[in-house]
Amino acid sequence: MSKFVLPNGFKTAGVACGIKKDGKKDLALIVSEPASEAAGVFTRNIVKGHSLKWTMNIIRNNMIKAVVINSGNANACVGPRGDSDAERIAEAAAKLAGCDKNQILLGSTGVIGFPLPIEKIEQGLQDAWSQLSSDSSTDAASAIMTTDTFPKEVSVNINLSGKNVTLYGMAKGSGMIHPNMATMIGVFLTDAAVSAEMLQQILTETVGKSFNRISVDGDTSVCDMVIVLANGEAGNRKITEKNNDYWTFADSFEKAAITLSKMLVRDGEGATKLIEIHVINAPDSETAHKISNSIAKSPLVKTAMFGQDANWGRILTAAGYSGAEFNPDTVDILIGDLLVCNNGVGLSFDEEKALEILKKDEIKITVDLKAGNAEDTMWTCDFSYDYVKINGSYRT
Amino acid sequence: MSKFVLPNGFKTAGVACGIKKDGKKDLALIVSEPASEAAGVFTRNIVKGHSLKWTMNIIRNNMIKAVVINSGNANACVGPRGDSDAERIAEAAAKLAGCDKNQILLGSTGVIGFPLPIEKIEQGLQDAWSQLSSDSSTDAASAIMTTDTFPKEVSVNINLSGKNVTLYGMAKGSGMIHPNMATMIGVFLTDAAVSAEMLQQILTETVGKSFNRISVDGDTSVCDMVIVLANGEAGNRKITEKNNDYWTFADSFEKAAITLSKMLVRDGEGATKLIEIHVINAPDSETAHKISNSIAKSPLVKTAMFGQDANWGRILTAAGYSGAEFNPDTVDILIGDLLVCNNGVGLSFDEEKALEILKKDEIKITVDLKAGNAEDTMWTCDFSYDYVKINGSYRT
Repeated sequence: MSKFVLPNGFKTAGVACGIKKDGKKDLALIVSEPASEAAGVFTRNIVKGHSLKWTMNIIRNNMIKAVVINSGNANACVGPRGDSDAERIAEAAAKLAGCDKNQILLGSTGVIGFPLPIEKIEQGLQDAWSQLSSDSSTDAASAIMTTDTFPKEVSVNINLSGKNVTLYGMAKGSGMIHPNMATMIGVFLTDAAVSAEMLQQILTETVGKSFNRISVDGDTSVCDMVIVLANGEAGNRKITEKNNDYWTFADSFEKAAITLSKMLVRDGEGATKLIEIHVINAPDSETAHKISNSIAKSPLVKTAMFGQDANWGRILTAAGYSGAEFNPDTVDILIGDLLVCNNGVGLSFDEEKALEILKKDEIKITVDLKAGNAEDTMWTCDFSYDYVKINGSYRT
Repeated sequence: MSKFVLPNGFKTAGVACGIKKDGKKDLALIVSEPASEAAGVFTRNIVKGHSLKWTMNIIRNNMIKAVVINSGNANACVGPRGDSDAERIAEAAAKLAGCDKNQILLGSTGVIGFPLPIEKIEQGLQDAWSQLSSDSSTDAASAIMTTDTFPKEVSVNINLSGKNVTLYGMAKGSGMIHPNMATMIGVFLTDAAVSAEMLQQILTETVGKSFNRISVDGDTSVCDMVIVLANGEAGNRKITEKNNDYWTFADSFEKAAITLSKMLVRDGEGATKLIEIHVINAPDSETAHKISNSIAKSPLVKTAMFGQDANWGRILTAAGYSGAEFNPDTVDILIGDLLVCNNGVGLSFDEEKALEILKKDEIKITVDLKAGNAEDTMWTCDFSYDYVKINGSYRT
């Protein structure tokens, strides 16, 4: 039994249908009764998986009845068969749910380039259907994992003008996490009544501040998406404009998404530390983001954090090649609350104190440009031996 | 005694002056008699080292008499003292060489943010001066190394309208190697007579096709430069325009620079393999370069190569997020001469044969867009446990 509460009207299941060789769960089913308004944000990679393309095509104009996500083998780069496999999965789920195939969203994650074992998935869907329940969200969250080491879920209650609504989210990483949708899938479910248009606005805004602000290795994959389903079962007055309820809901949504995003980084492949890069007092937000992003991606910064080395020179260097325009002679750098670089010049700081900060499993790096009021935050992880180990032999 | 021939009129020395704690060589001196025309290409990092700035300021308008490069501690990010230290080194070398301080080029590489031990360098310069010889280039090439595991030198003879001229080059890496001058220093010496203007054109063109086409980890540093000195001692008719001699010399220069560039990649931190990324039949060279660059930087591709895993999906994925516009449905990918992806679709290739190719220490990856005639080549290395090890504890 899951410790996370699903919103009213949603049921989930997670089964092992035989895609993963180790017998772990690899097929997640989510069903909404009644059907949901939906919105999605998808990978910007020019290469797009077949199941992803299916979802992108149907999500805008249909009330969504169910979501099917498989892990262990991504339905991507296998030619026309990939498209017909996507359709077959949607048809099989639609038959079980008694709806149109265009009401079924699909997700797929894992190694690309190998056709799906479609019969196993069709059989698995029947098993999943028979196991649907309102307290098995963790089964579904486990079934979408690839190299993740733990399932990632979040649940919040929100009061919308006196009505209690629930927002639930699940997500998977864990390599290739980088802005613009890396190998990650996020699914949010809510019983709030929200129009598809407002859902899309909230989701797009939220992703920009959460999932697009994390980096594990700078790679982005071809099957990634964050979707949200809203079935209206909470009975609140439907959100169709940017009123108070909109902002209350959007605010909780953003907090939930940031919680899941940080979990993704913490579970980055081989990660031992969560690192927050905070750029402050920048002339504009684009400059701030270029710098935070460049630092978050730098393998030299990430290996230094793994090695508990207060190597601020690499932080300043990464800022310097970010493409942002700034004056290096006004830059301060803090590791935790320890000032290590003042106006672009290194300080002879207390190495003992630095080590104490760097030993922790959450490290904050602040870069102060002293040139304005804009800021930006990125979350990343350190680069360890295990990253190399995991990724040196993922496919085989 | 070095096995590389210095051009006429050049002498070098490499000594241990005490900057490196392990007693290895850390100060290189190069002297030109007579003074040389010179040209340079410098880091595009917005943060620039003090010694680098000295060199950038004087190289255009002076005949160069000597070059001083220290390793073990970069003269960068230490405030006004860094600028006066640079001047002191130039003054000390000028005094020995009997020339103006503006005729001394400086280079400096190592950890940034710590002031140079300037007295040790001044003493070291005197020792180096007394050891100058025409057959000690390897001492100098060793003295500029940081985490390099071997000195990198090249020497070629070139016939310019019947006159024999010599071109010698040395370079150091080995982390932070990425286009636009990473932590790398390259020094070319020639006894050819070439005007500073023509030297600059040849160098800029050459760097674009060699040192800016290699990547170890995507980081770029603040002290990097490639310089060339030409003292005219070979007695050829001075190259002052783009005549036949110009192209003959430029062609040999490019080959020598590519040879050194590949050595840098092969000696990338923790590298076990040299990987050539060749993008062909692209609509234009910018598209080709965006794709080759994105693949060369991808940690997932680089770890797969270390793990001898023919994971072409990661290659296609990196192409997809490169920012280049292309049709994924016409893309072929070859690992060595083995076709693994045809028109964007994975093939069930011979895994035994793939492993045989991937076991080699030089691997060529070809991405064929089938969309034009442009091409681009990048050289990179694999990402190993040792990369993490070396960079997790570099500073301390």
